[in-house]
Amino acid sequence: MRLLRLRGAVRLADVMVRIGCSESTARRDLAVLESLGELRRVHGGATTVEDRQSRGPVLDELRTVALGLRTNRGHRFGSTGTVGLLIPQRGYYWAAVLDGAQRAAELTGLRLVLGEAPDPQTDEAVRLRSLLHLEVDALLVAPNLHRLGDTRVLEALQGVDVPVVLLERRVPEAFATRDVDSVTSDHSHGGRLAGRHLLDRGHRRIAFLGWPVSPTYEPVLTGLRTAIDDAGATVVEHPLRWLGRIDHQDHRGQVVEALAALRAQRVTAVLCQPDEAALYLLDAARARGVRIPQDLAVISYDDELSGAATPPLTAVAPAKQDIGFSAIMLCLRRIARLGPPPHATQQVMLLPDLVIRESG
Amino acid sequence: MRLLRLRGAVRLADVMVRIGCSESTARRDLAVLESLGELRRVHGGATTVEDRQSRGPVLDELRTVALGLRTNRGHRFGSTGTVGLLIPQRGYYWAAVLDGAQRAAELTGLRLVLGEAPDPQTDEAVRLRSLLHLEVDALLVAPNLHRLGDTRVLEALQGVDVPVVLLERRVPEAFATRDVDSVTSDHSHGGRLAGRHLLDRGHRRIAFLGWPVSPTYEPVLTGLRTAIDDAGATVVEHPLRWLGRIDHQDHRGQVVEALAALRAQRVTAVLCQPDEAALYLLDAARARGVRIPQDLAVISYDDELSGAATPPLTAVAPAKQDIGFSAIMLCLRRIARLGPPPHATQQVMLLPDLVIRESG
Repeated sequence: MRLLRLRGAVRLADVMVRIGCSESTARRDLAVLESLGELRRVHGGATTVEDRQSRGPVLDELRTVALGLRTNRGHRFGSTGTVGLLIPQRGYYWAAVLDGAQRAAELTGLRLVLGEAPDPQTDEAVRLRSLLHLEVDALLVAPNLHRLGDTRVLEALQGVDVPVVLLERRVPEAFATRDVDSVTSDHSHGGRLAGRHLLDRGHRRIAFLGWPVSPTYEPVLTGLRTAIDDAGATVVEHPLRWLGRIDHQDHRGQVVEALAALRAQRVTAVLCQPDEAALYLLDAARARGVRIPQDLAVISYDDELSGAATPPLTAVAPAKQDIGFSAIMLCLRRIARLGPPPHATQQVMLLPDLVIRESG
Repeated sequence: MRLLRLRGAVRLADVMVRIGCSESTARRDLAVLESLGELRRVHGGATTVEDRQSRGPVLDELRTVALGLRTNRGHRFGSTGTVGLLIPQRGYYWAAVLDGAQRAAELTGLRLVLGEAPDPQTDEAVRLRSLLHLEVDALLVAPNLHRLGDTRVLEALQGVDVPVVLLERRVPEAFATRDVDSVTSDHSHGGRLAGRHLLDRGHRRIAFLGWPVSPTYEPVLTGLRTAIDDAGATVVEHPLRWLGRIDHQDHRGQVVEALAALRAQRVTAVLCQPDEAALYLLDAARARGVRIPQDLAVISYDDELSGAATPPLTAVAPAKQDIGFSAIMLCLRRIARLGPPPHATQQVMLLPDLVIRESG
């Protein structure tokens, strides 16, 4: 109930881990609490009961606040009530970020406009300019800094005179004084969570499988190493070659080879980043008769497709919706000028969570 | 105007530094912009004009939202509308944090209760218990972790089932999974700002003067070193002995000795942390005929008493008010359960600012 109060929702596995009980006990307790009217059971967990009724008025009032922003066009600031959003793609990972941003926009009466392009290869700076053309009141930007070390978007942002919030990218030191806020995941914490969980389950040789080209690779590996090294266990790093796009068919082949290598190195558990790597690994294991989790425990990173896998994947889940939500709230602070000026630059870090399923 | 739009206020020195103009040019331009109705001049800078009128309705509506929280006592959460605040003292540094928290409380209709004690030496855990006795909806806590490595307050917080936000203290890794949010200053950034400013003014031998017992000492020094080392200049560290309380008379004597040592080491600039050290240094310099900033440039850290010094001190200013303000907003997110659950743990980092005055 404490966890439920703090988070607004709990997963069955959270209850099992925190209380140290079996799944059937956790299910029964949730059912009892539901019968007492203390919570509402949903698939895989429970949420608070009074969601609709008690939050209703708050939601409505908050909506009124920001609708005031939108309709009162006499304002010098917050004049369009529109926030531009530039993300690498609408799919994987960013769909949830977009969803969170959309919920916050709905709550506050702001309008969200996506930075679209004729095709995904279009230069981000071009898409950025098209967003600015719409006269937005603020910009949320997730620049692809890891591609070719491209800082053109950040440079283009220098001339922007509306609040900017970077998503999942830290503001480089050179830009840190420019009043650019950021919302990022603490991926090191994600790596540590996975490491501690595997240690708790008795694993002592743990592999990390991923593409070093990703900006997430290094922090996740660092966090994993921190947890594992402290316990005197071993991390086996297995970097994959990046072939230009995530669904390249030869990536699957690399993972098949990786499975053989990891087995030869007597690894008993592996953290795969991102989810795709874990899905390929499950396929390869099935083909070779390697049982998951008995022969090899698997944890995936991102929690995008992992719930639907066979077996369902234990996964580190970055707070993707919260990222979008918090970014809008950071904008609102500057647009509506909430709080005493001058508004300091804010860097918000969100801790990922571990969703325990069957693979490890 | 861009800076003013983003921050809600600008200082004269900001204008001079950003535009690279003289003080008289900056003053004249602000006067012209005021005559055009674009801004309002205040002591040392300018604020946006439409402060009252346009922010009025937003303020009122937001107040209504949280008043709804307070008056609707049928709620399971947010039932008392009260947030407890535990700070080391009401004075130095924390007065501004408290002020920011109070503004946010006013804005949202929450009531702020200070954790008081018969005398300042009372165990923080005792004060914490007295706060919990009041049945608060959330707790803001600035534990004195640096005193004796005391983690008793954090341990006491384990049993608390309302949202907790730590102020100016990072959540230790062992507690990071417990849904404890935090709001801290990026003091490394503060150190870098001071370092870059002194480099810009031509200094190449720069001292750092402070008490290593403070949790702020290490990050400020690290930031200063980063900026200075990159430029091939030298940092001279001058640690002071801590004698139990900040106004201990022998601290002044230590700073007098430090001045002689720094002069002998041909240092031309010094960053003092906190402000007290800088004030002692100004006194010592006056007594010895050392001219500030001609013979020695001085920057202080915290910006508490530095504006009233002779000469007025250039200072790194942590966003103290913003810390209190943001902490209340983080609470509100969990109390009113804004955004999609589960609510991830948030670690908010605020970047300090450099306030340029006459000492360096």
